[in-house]
Amino acid sequence: MSLLVIGSVAFDAIETPFGKTDKIVGGAATFASLAASYFYDKVKIVAVVGDDFPQQAIDSFAAHHIDTEGLQVKQGEKSFFWSGRYHNDMNSRDTLITELNVLADFDPIIPDNYQDCEYLMLGNLTPQVQQTVISRLHKRPKLIVMDTMNFWMDIALNDLLETIKLVDVLTINDAEARQLSGEYSLVKAARKILTMGPAYLIIKKGEHGALLFHEDKIFSAPALPLAEVFDPTGAGDTFAGGFIGYMAKAGEVTFEHMKNAIIYGSALASFCVEKFGTEKIQNLSKQEVNARIQEFINLSKFEIDLEE
Amino acid sequence: MSLLVIGSVAFDAIETPFGKTDKIVGGAATFASLAASYFYDKVKIVAVVGDDFPQQAIDSFAAHHIDTEGLQVKQGEKSFFWSGRYHNDMNSRDTLITELNVLADFDPIIPDNYQDCEYLMLGNLTPQVQQTVISRLHKRPKLIVMDTMNFWMDIALNDLLETIKLVDVLTINDAEARQLSGEYSLVKAARKILTMGPAYLIIKKGEHGALLFHEDKIFSAPALPLAEVFDPTGAGDTFAGGFIGYMAKAGEVTFEHMKNAIIYGSALASFCVEKFGTEKIQNLSKQEVNARIQEFINLSKFEIDLEE
Repeated sequence: MSLLVIGSVAFDAIETPFGKTDKIVGGAATFASLAASYFYDKVKIVAVVGDDFPQQAIDSFAAHHIDTEGLQVKQGEKSFFWSGRYHNDMNSRDTLITELNVLADFDPIIPDNYQDCEYLMLGNLTPQVQQTVISRLHKRPKLIVMDTMNFWMDIALNDLLETIKLVDVLTINDAEARQLSGEYSLVKAARKILTMGPAYLIIKKGEHGALLFHEDKIFSAPALPLAEVFDPTGAGDTFAGGFIGYMAKAGEVTFEHMKNAIIYGSALASFCVEKFGTEKIQNLSKQEVNARIQEFINLSKFEIDLEE
Repeated sequence: MSLLVIGSVAFDAIETPFGKTDKIVGGAATFASLAASYFYDKVKIVAVVGDDFPQQAIDSFAAHHIDTEGLQVKQGEKSFFWSGRYHNDMNSRDTLITELNVLADFDPIIPDNYQDCEYLMLGNLTPQVQQTVISRLHKRPKLIVMDTMNFWMDIALNDLLETIKLVDVLTINDAEARQLSGEYSLVKAARKILTMGPAYLIIKKGEHGALLFHEDKIFSAPALPLAEVFDPTGAGDTFAGGFIGYMAKAGEVTFEHMKNAIIYGSALASFCVEKFGTEKIQNLSKQEVNARIQEFINLSKFEIDLEE
C-alpha cells in the first residue's frame, strides 16, 4: 500500500516584491510529495528530470522517506524550468520563461513495486500524461486526486474532460471552476463539475480558503490570515499533497476525513508561502504542524446552541 | 435598555441581471433595524423621511416592534433616493441616481425615551451625523457599532477618523480596510485600524465571509455559498443589524458572543439577497432562521483530535 505522486520536478526562478531567487528546486510533485510525507511514510514519486538536477535535492526526498525509483534522470537533457514574477497583490503573476525540456516528451513509467498504489495524486501536468498513469496501474487506486489549471482548459480541453471522468477528487481554483463550468455561481459551477466524473470537487480560493463539494454537501475551510505572503509558488501543490497524505493516513474515504484533510493541506500551504520554494516545508516539526492546526481550529470554531 | 439604530430610511430602485424594481423601500436603518428585530424586541430608530414615504412602510416597522418615535417625517420634502445597476458578477455596481433630499441637512434628534440606549448601531451615513448621535446620548452605550464606506473615506476622511475613535466595532469591507489603512495584507490593515479607536474590526468579504479582529485574535466566518444572489442591496446593513441585535440579546460584550453574532448577521444577510429589497427579511420564521444557522454550522464544522 502506497501513495503515488506524479507531477513536475523542476527548477523555478521567482521574483516577488520581497526579493528574487536564482534557479531553485520546485515542481508540483516536489511540493506535493514533501507535504504528503508529513502524514504518510510510503510516498513514491513518478517524474522526470535532466542531468542538471542536483543529487542533493534527490537526497532530500530520501530524507523524507519518499521513494524516487520512479524519478527518471535523462542524461544530456535539462530539467523543466519556469520563471515568474508576482505582482504586488501576490495573487496574480506573469510567466517570464517556460522551458519544457525533459517534460516535452515525458513517458511516465511506473516501477513494478509502485503497483501497490492505493492513493494517487495527479499533480498538475498534461492531462494525457495524467491519464496514462491511471491506465498503467494494474489495480485502480482507492482514491485518485487530480490537480489541473486553466492552461489545460485553454489548449487541451477534450483530454482534460476525458481525464476528469476517471478521478475521484478534482482540485482547481475559483476562476478555473467558472471557466470549466461556464457558471459564475460556484454552487452552480460545482453542481455541473460533479456531473463530469469526480464525486468530490475542491475549489481553492487562496486567501479566502477552500470549498469542498460532494453530493449536496458543502464544507467551507478558512485560510489562515497572514501578515506576509512571501512566495505563493507551490502553495496549491502543497495543499493537494497535504490533503492526500492525510487521506492516506486516515485510510478511509469519507466526507468527514476530507474536511480534516483540507485543514491539514491548508496548514501545510500556509507554511509553504512563508519562504521561497520548498525551504519552509523541508523541516517542519510535528509540534509546528500541530500548533498551526490549532490556529485553524481557533480561527473558525464557534459554539451556537440553537435551543437558546 | 434598548438598541438604537441610526441610518437612512429611503427609496431604492434596483436593476440586476434578474430584473428591476420601481422605487422600493430601503436604507441602512431599514435593513439593520428589521434584522435586529429578530433577536431583540426593543429596537428604536432615528432617521428622516419626506412626506412621500408610505405609511404602510412605517407600519411594517411597528409590526416588528421597532419604535419609530425618532423617525422624522418632513412635510413638503422628499425621501432619500438611490438607484443602481448591478453587473453580472453581482459584486460591482454603478450608481445611476443619488438624490439626498431630506438627508442633505439631517439633524438626528434623539427622543427622551431613547436615552436608555445600551446598544448603538451607526448605520452608514455622514460621519459627522454619526458623531452627533453619540454626543447626544447622555450615557455612553455599552456597545457602539459603526458601519461606513469608501465614499466617506474619499470625501470626509478627517470626520471619519474622529468618529472611528469613539466606537467599539467598525464594520467595513476588504477594499475599504485596505484603503483606510494603506496596507494590502488584511492582517496588517486590521492591526493598524485597531490602533485608530475600535477594539473590534469586522472585515466583510461578501461571498468569502467575514473576519473579526480583536487584540491578537481572529475569527473567520464563512459565507453560505448561494446558487443565486438575486439582489445584494442592503446585505451589509442586514449583517450589521443582525450582529448588534444578537449582541443586545446576549447582553454581554465578549469575543465569543461576537463570533456567534457574526454568524447570525451572516445568516440574515444570506436571506436578504434572495429577494429584492426587504421582501425576504420582512417575514422570517424562527424555524427558518434556525435552519439557516444550522447550515452555517454544517458548512464550517470539523473535528480534529490533535492527539491522533
